[in-house]
Amino acid sequence: MENHILAENLSRLETLLEERKYTQAAAVVKDLNPADAAVLLEELPEQKVPVLFRLCPKELAADAFAYMSPEAQELLVRSFSDRELDEVMEQLFLDDTVDMIEEMPANVVKKILRHVDAETRKMINQVLNYPKDSAGSMMTMEYVDLKRSMTVEQAFERIRRTGVEKETVYTCYVTDSRRKLEGIVTVKDLLLARKDEVIRNIMETNIKFVSTHTDQEEAARELSRYDFLALPVVDAEERLVGIVTVDDAIDVIEEEATEDIEKMAAMAPSDRPYMRTGIWETWRKRVPWLLFLMISATFTSGIISAYEGALAASVVLTGFIPMLMDTGGNSGGQSSATIIRGLSLGEIRYGDVPRVVLKESAVALLNGCTLAAANFVKLMLIDRVGLPVALVVCATLMAVVLVSNLVGSCLPVLAKRLGFDPAVMASPLITTIVDAIALTIYFNIAKLVLGI
Amino acid sequence: MENHILAENLSRLETLLEERKYTQAAAVVKDLNPADAAVLLEELPEQKVPVLFRLCPKELAADAFAYMSPEAQELLVRSFSDRELDEVMEQLFLDDTVDMIEEMPANVVKKILRHVDAETRKMINQVLNYPKDSAGSMMTMEYVDLKRSMTVEQAFERIRRTGVEKETVYTCYVTDSRRKLEGIVTVKDLLLARKDEVIRNIMETNIKFVSTHTDQEEAARELSRYDFLALPVVDAEERLVGIVTVDDAIDVIEEEATEDIEKMAAMAPSDRPYMRTGIWETWRKRVPWLLFLMISATFTSGIISAYEGALAASVVLTGFIPMLMDTGGNSGGQSSATIIRGLSLGEIRYGDVPRVVLKESAVALLNGCTLAAANFVKLMLIDRVGLPVALVVCATLMAVVLVSNLVGSCLPVLAKRLGFDPAVMASPLITTIVDAIALTIYFNIAKLVLGI
Repeated sequence: MENHILAENLSRLETLLEERKYTQAAAVVKDLNPADAAVLLEELPEQKVPVLFRLCPKELAADAFAYMSPEAQELLVRSFSDRELDEVMEQLFLDDTVDMIEEMPANVVKKILRHVDAETRKMINQVLNYPKDSAGSMMTMEYVDLKRSMTVEQAFERIRRTGVEKETVYTCYVTDSRRKLEGIVTVKDLLLARKDEVIRNIMETNIKFVSTHTDQEEAARELSRYDFLALPVVDAEERLVGIVTVDDAIDVIEEEATEDIEKMAAMAPSDRPYMRTGIWETWRKRVPWLLFLMISATFTSGIISAYEGALAASVVLTGFIPMLMDTGGNSGGQSSATIIRGLSLGEIRYGDVPRVVLKESAVALLNGCTLAAANFVKLMLIDRVGLPVALVVCATLMAVVLVSNLVGSCLPVLAKRLGFDPAVMASPLITTIVDAIALTIYFNIAKLVLGI
Repeated sequence: MENHILAENLSRLETLLEERKYTQAAAVVKDLNPADAAVLLEELPEQKVPVLFRLCPKELAADAFAYMSPEAQELLVRSFSDRELDEVMEQLFLDDTVDMIEEMPANVVKKILRHVDAETRKMINQVLNYPKDSAGSMMTMEYVDLKRSMTVEQAFERIRRTGVEKETVYTCYVTDSRRKLEGIVTVKDLLLARKDEVIRNIMETNIKFVSTHTDQEEAARELSRYDFLALPVVDAEERLVGIVTVDDAIDVIEEEATEDIEKMAAMAPSDRPYMRTGIWETWRKRVPWLLFLMISATFTSGIISAYEGALAASVVLTGFIPMLMDTGGNSGGQSSATIIRGLSLGEIRYGDVPRVVLKESAVALLNGCTLAAANFVKLMLIDRVGLPVALVVCATLMAVVLVSNLVGSCLPVLAKRLGFDPAVMASPLITTIVDAIALTIYFNIAKLVLGI
């Protein structure tokens, strides 16, 4: 829903609820898309949320509930009567239920679990036991399973009978008596086949699947690589336990990109959208890296102190320190951002590393020459520093850019190899490392050329 | 396909092709998933690609073709006989055809267009005319359209008759005689309805759609927000012209995140994966920003020169310059990365700006106090600089962190308001701006406290 329509609907609803014109309020919401209804509900003042929720048609209310933030869900669950909670829980898909439970305080979880049947409770517990960020923790167990001996007509019957509560019916899974996955058949295959055709003959047996312990990012990427609508998840015995659906895969891909961007900016990734994160939480996510980097920068200061003599002998050198440090940081940051993203998308593999290093070096030489040339002209014509100083600055610039690109391209790869997230090897850390190297190069070239 | 299986298959295929054991080579590829076959084909030595392509079953070959890189596609198109090209073009979806044509040189495009029928050629031209990165340019025209007066049974018949060539059959579009979109019905709805039910009664009429000129990122996000498998695209007269499918939406979301990361690291976004971008192209994407930032850093140098007297009077001050500049850059980079991503995901809207600025200031105060406290201890106990210098450094630190967060949070919003991409207002540019401010604050506090 576009912003202005949302704002319009919102103020109209608030007035109607204020004036207790409930029938009219119900008319406003009744045809909304569940995702839009959720946004609308969340923007209302807290005490109005349960009122409006009760005015929604039952199915819309339950669907909208799945789209709401954990805070709003908690508010509603607390206000629900037993019957209302029953209704919502019955309608909710398993993976949405699990997502919700993961965010709720214990007493609310208890209230929720009282209102699901024993079988669902068992499934919830199973999913909750998979590692965070694994395929198992994001999957849903509500898929359509078929048998290889069924005919197309029988398959359709089964879909019609069980499909309402399944998250997707378009990809069906053929399993044997031990729940081992034997094949996959899509509704498109079924529609295009003869009614008396047997599933065995039309199912795809070259099956792509992930394990419950596969990283959720990898699962999402597998699904996207093959353009699937759902990807089966199997346990250690290769038995089908659930499916990952494309809508959840998109969410994971978005989350993982956000996480990478946060780490690349030297922050601990946050689980919640910015506007719903408190000041203290934001501080906790940011200050450790700032502290660590500040202390690391001490080395840089140490280097400047060590060369105080050289600086005193040629004060003009001090003025170029920021430019050299910044350029090194920027150049290394370019390399590392490129490599980190390439690793994350799977575009760069270990085997590619030699080529990557060569390419980054070549680009560094080109960049270094361009920057040095531009700087040389400026130094001679505008700053008028004299040839020796100009040579020192330009030579340093070229060396710094080369080293920065090498550091920026190798550290992420190294981090990955050691089992860390490459994204932490981004601009802030690279900058700190490159700063120290840049200054050392600078002062040594200066000593050599200027004889100070 | 996992890396080691790919490598295994690859070396096996190379040997088989080398030894002209074509039947065995064909057996290796025949059951592959098209996406895997495409990877395999791309990794082969160039002269072997057309050979293996011809060994693939026709349908697999055409499907794999759609997954291949523009370079590999060009190689194949050049080697195709007229009949081969006919076959591939017939099998290819319209949006894949358009993607390919956009990357080919003119003579290859000509060859391709000779092998598509007049109607397809017309559609290709239409899609090519939509702005780059618009919903129109990413859509496909191959959707299933129904009429409101059809029964469910008639709808299924139509899907069975026309579905093979459609990119998705699971969402069907109900249009009137002028192609205006009247409703949407999913195959799930159809499966769960009675056979003699009329479409009019089961179609969803609250339709979400985008226009051909909507930005592709917005289209992808709309689709993801509502968990759709496809999103209709309409023209200025609200007539249905195509659909955006979920697999393409995922690609767009990935691309846009990559683009943001590149811009945030001060690079012009590249259209191609890293390993397929040449050295010169990479240089062209990176050097303009490096040059611009290097020249901007001159201001910082100018400030240091202007305060040379102060520095000479208290040489110890020089040593803290890198730490102050780095911390400012890191802190501002944290803010800007957070805000840029929030804006890009639509989590932060203009109305939120006052709250954002307040929150960033509060976090800055907390961060500043923490960092200053840590630094104070270090300055007094390890560096033993004396109270006045310690106070100057710590006061500067707090001021710098505050200013950095304000700059880092306001500039992306300002950029967006002015119609630029907020992502350029990231760490590198923020660092350069913050550096100059940090030094000015530093020297002025030093002058004030130390009386130099």
